[in-house]
Amino acid sequence: MAFESKIRPIYWENGVSKMLDQTIIPYEYKYVDITSGQQMFDAIKTMIVRGAPAIGIAGAQGVVLYAQEGRGGKYKDIGEFKSWLTEKADYMATSRPTAVNLMWACAEQKKVIENSTSDIEGLIKELTDKAIEIELDDIERCKKIGDFGAEVVPKGATILTHCNAGALATGGYGTALGVVRSAYDKDNTIQVFADETRPRQQGARLTTFELAMDGIPVTLITDGMCSYFMNKGMIDMVVVGADRIAANGDAANKIGTYTVAIAAKYHNIPFYVAAPLSTIDTSIATGKEITIEEPSHEEVTHINGKRICAEGINIINPGFDVTPHELITGIITEKGILRPDYNKSILEAFKK
Amino acid sequence: MAFESKIRPIYWENGVSKMLDQTIIPYEYKYVDITSGQQMFDAIKTMIVRGAPAIGIAGAQGVVLYAQEGRGGKYKDIGEFKSWLTEKADYMATSRPTAVNLMWACAEQKKVIENSTSDIEGLIKELTDKAIEIELDDIERCKKIGDFGAEVVPKGATILTHCNAGALATGGYGTALGVVRSAYDKDNTIQVFADETRPRQQGARLTTFELAMDGIPVTLITDGMCSYFMNKGMIDMVVVGADRIAANGDAANKIGTYTVAIAAKYHNIPFYVAAPLSTIDTSIATGKEITIEEPSHEEVTHINGKRICAEGINIINPGFDVTPHELITGIITEKGILRPDYNKSILEAFKK
Repeated sequence: MAFESKIRPIYWENGVSKMLDQTIIPYEYKYVDITSGQQMFDAIKTMIVRGAPAIGIAGAQGVVLYAQEGRGGKYKDIGEFKSWLTEKADYMATSRPTAVNLMWACAEQKKVIENSTSDIEGLIKELTDKAIEIELDDIERCKKIGDFGAEVVPKGATILTHCNAGALATGGYGTALGVVRSAYDKDNTIQVFADETRPRQQGARLTTFELAMDGIPVTLITDGMCSYFMNKGMIDMVVVGADRIAANGDAANKIGTYTVAIAAKYHNIPFYVAAPLSTIDTSIATGKEITIEEPSHEEVTHINGKRICAEGINIINPGFDVTPHELITGIITEKGILRPDYNKSILEAFKK
Repeated sequence: MAFESKIRPIYWENGVSKMLDQTIIPYEYKYVDITSGQQMFDAIKTMIVRGAPAIGIAGAQGVVLYAQEGRGGKYKDIGEFKSWLTEKADYMATSRPTAVNLMWACAEQKKVIENSTSDIEGLIKELTDKAIEIELDDIERCKKIGDFGAEVVPKGATILTHCNAGALATGGYGTALGVVRSAYDKDNTIQVFADETRPRQQGARLTTFELAMDGIPVTLITDGMCSYFMNKGMIDMVVVGADRIAANGDAANKIGTYTVAIAAKYHNIPFYVAAPLSTIDTSIATGKEITIEEPSHEEVTHINGKRICAEGINIINPGFDVTPHELITGIITEKGILRPDYNKSILEAFKK
């Protein structure tokens, strides 16, 4: 029996989306009932739910919530209902403009709407089934990633990770932390070192929280410490997630990942990226084509609402960096671990 | 005329030590009057003053404060007074156990006490002169470091620094930031990128503050970002301070320095250490002999008094790391820039 995480960031129950409020972790562990389409839109926008796959699930559920609101004879026929709901699905897809999984999930629901031959209640049932399918598929996909990844985790290994590519970011198992969960399931002497991941501190706030919840030993370190522990022989491998991977294997991930990859290379420590194939965008040849968003400067200048630096200074806040393929030992996907030359191995994985 | 910094972390005025309270920077800029020996002991212990050279100045002033308290006929003769004051100087030296400059400065004052042929008032005058001499010598030494360092700063350079090796840590000019000040004096198109320097955030709290005070352009970045900017060609050189340097050039400095040095090497960016010769400890052959202290775990888990991570997780908080000599382009001292082979160049510098 595979490892089961206690963390479910979002699930569907009796016509309601149950969403773990990630804005208050690690201080509180509280679910919010999301009962309307607009409430889901706002929850995605304000990052009550975060992580590309989890946002996708949320978007799919949001379309169901809109469909439920349309009940009760407001529309003269199913055609008018479908046309209204399709607009709402398009609207839902705009709640986080750059989230690929969100757009994909809303498009999946639009296909359900288009292809359905049922009445309103039947269509609601079909949309609900699709939302649940998207959620469960994600968990299964992450478990496959985890199981492939676990094969390259040495006995008793200490795994360093950056940011949160965990259960909280997905349906409930994680990509990088999926590898950790599957490895821990086979060998409970492994442990994790979690980078704090400034500026947003997802490592400190989320990764330590979800690993502690699941009873997996975790040590929090600040971002500058990685090389110190690598030098001491205390890190056996690095596993991180990815936001977007180019055809040549260059991987965009949370800012700071590239620094960890350089440190790993310097110490000859394997550096793996764990991500589903859907993260790989073969339409871009290299990481140079990936646009780096710049989030709010307050992320750098303030922590928990309090300023940490002088006034009147300059700030640059790149949200992501690109780790070049030559620093990546392997890309762990649901189809197996891809190795260099990535241009070849990625194409082969898509054919499988 | 050389660049004059507005920052004076500690200075002597009318029998009182005027100390900038560094625990409240960058929120407030406030001087505290230190008027007794015990108050100075506590100010050093609670880090109202910090940075090895600044602590040395504080210790020397602390002995003067004790001497002033001994006025008024409490002691039957100068011998008894000297014996009491020597004990106080030894006590002052224990306010921060590992601070080399503090021990050195208190020993200097003990020499003054031992060698003096004056009465109590005369001795107080001699101790005051020595304390002021230690302060002014430090500023002069830093200016020499700065001027030597400025010679290797390219026109219009962006200089990355880590932690605070600045005016705030010294008599009022800085070592790494002394190089910045001297370079800025010659070329006001240079600028600084300051690492936040988690866990204690000296880069965010202190370096941005003192550079902003002096009108030198500074950009705050988080520790993980350095490689991103190096890769973009936005960093021309790195200059950091040091807490202790071994005979072979291995340099202990604030945790995270080693990671920056590895990133600089990967991008072929010069990495300099700026420090007075007094930082070099030729009694230790390599950095392996340098013991790394572990400060409070709260530095990692809490920021501004608020917890940032889950409860019940592991913490390791090495206060320093050691950058191996092979990553160091040069060591900028008051006797010039030392280059590899450091075993040779360090010995030669001490002979100058």
